[in-house]
Amino acid sequence: MEIFGDKISGNCLKIKYAADYLGLDYTWIDVDITRGESRTDEFLALSPNGQVPVVRLADGRVLSQSNAILRYIAHGTVLLPDELFGQALIDQWLFWEQYNHEPNVAVCRFDMIYRGKRADERDPVKVAKGEKALDLMDRHLESRDYFVCQRLTIADIALLAYTRLAHEGGFQLEGRNALTRWITRCEQDLRIASHHEQNRIASHG
Amino acid sequence: MEIFGDKISGNCLKIKYAADYLGLDYTWIDVDITRGESRTDEFLALSPNGQVPVVRLADGRVLSQSNAILRYIAHGTVLLPDELFGQALIDQWLFWEQYNHEPNVAVCRFDMIYRGKRADERDPVKVAKGEKALDLMDRHLESRDYFVCQRLTIADIALLAYTRLAHEGGFQLEGRNALTRWITRCEQDLRIASHHEQNRIASHG
Ligand SMILES: N[C@@H](CCC(=O)N[C@@H](CS)C(=O)NCC(=O)O)C(=O)O
Ligand SMILES: N[C@@H](CCC(=O)N[C@@H](CS)C(=O)NCC(=O)O)C(=O)O
Repeated sequence: MEIFGDKISGNCLKIKYAADYLGLDYTWIDVDITRGESRTDEFLALSPNGQVPVVRLADGRVLSQSNAILRYIAHGTVLLPDELFGQALIDQWLFWEQYNHEPNVAVCRFDMIYRGKRADERDPVKVAKGEKALDLMDRHLESRDYFVCQRLTIADIALLAYTRLAHEGGFQLEGRNALTRWITRCEQDLRIASHHEQNRIASHG
Repeated sequence: MEIFGDKISGNCLKIKYAADYLGLDYTWIDVDITRGESRTDEFLALSPNGQVPVVRLADGRVLSQSNAILRYIAHGTVLLPDELFGQALIDQWLFWEQYNHEPNVAVCRFDMIYRGKRADERDPVKVAKGEKALDLMDRHLESRDYFVCQRLTIADIALLAYTRLAHEGGFQLEGRNALTRWITRCEQDLRIASHHEQNRIASHG
């Protein structure tokens, strides 16, 4: 499998986190979105939507949309339960992530890191919706260790990618205790660097 | 099964289209979003995200997010193929709908119909992204009758809901011939009223 992605993008990192966790064999092909490499004729021939991540299977078939890719590679693994309603709840969170979380939290981060905006120059509607999304996650996790099924699934991986970087978009994680404990838990499961380091850089850097 | 929904919402109509097509037994419970009925304490206790559609199964389990609900009710039916990569392509379009299509096409429609904006008062970024989404659909359908699998699936139903109402959001369907032929094809399959009637009202009403 080839993964076309940019490591500044949480949507792409989701695929890396899941593939590494599952020990999948893949080639990572860097696509630099800040230089428009996802909008070249060559890339558009691969995926007309012009966004990363995209995966190409050994037989040439191509799939886009981070959460569709997650669901495909997790099929039949520990990251996706077999039980139908469990899968439905995972889908619920995957769609919620793309609709209520990513367009707010990730876009604020993009505006601050890549467009040089200050926190007080962010879109106030996106700030409010992002805060609300983080609050909803925090409340959901007060009585649970993971989003669904009492264990790590692709719902956690999809939500983790931008939540652990929320500081870079001007959102505070401090005080959202269930949420920060969950971030640490997932980071340990996935053996990725702690978000504390990332936050330190965001606050002081 | 109980479906909590508002019939002005394409996200809710998706569930009705699929449930009717499959002949599922359900009770429709009207939630008037223009009167804030999705934000009452009672509704938030059912679904903390405060949006419709939501379904409650006979045993009390609750599921939200239109495309997660579609996928759940379509499991094992003609609307969702068994084959894994076919399902992955359907997921790809479901996520694309929620990320690239609905936030643009449906939001422009909402602004015009429910907030009284004129076409030239719509958010220009959403207009451009909506036009691009409709173009991508039209091109995809030039060589296909349905989005995936050569037959009607939940990918078509999810995309149909707001595409057939795109005129109400100030988007032109005329000239996008593959797209309009697909709309008519899906409306006939689903036995729902033709979008031509809807367009006539939008243009002249
Ligand atoms: N819904 C898509 C979103 C993909 C997306 O927004 N990709 C961004 C990077 S995070 C991108 O490719 N941006 C560059 C561009 O649009 O040209 C997914 O989940 O995969
Ligand atoms: N991603 C959700 C979107 C649901 C949604 O936006 N629902 C709207 C109606 S289309 C709603 O409930 N609006 C009222 C509110 O937000 O209070 C889905 O696909 O179900």
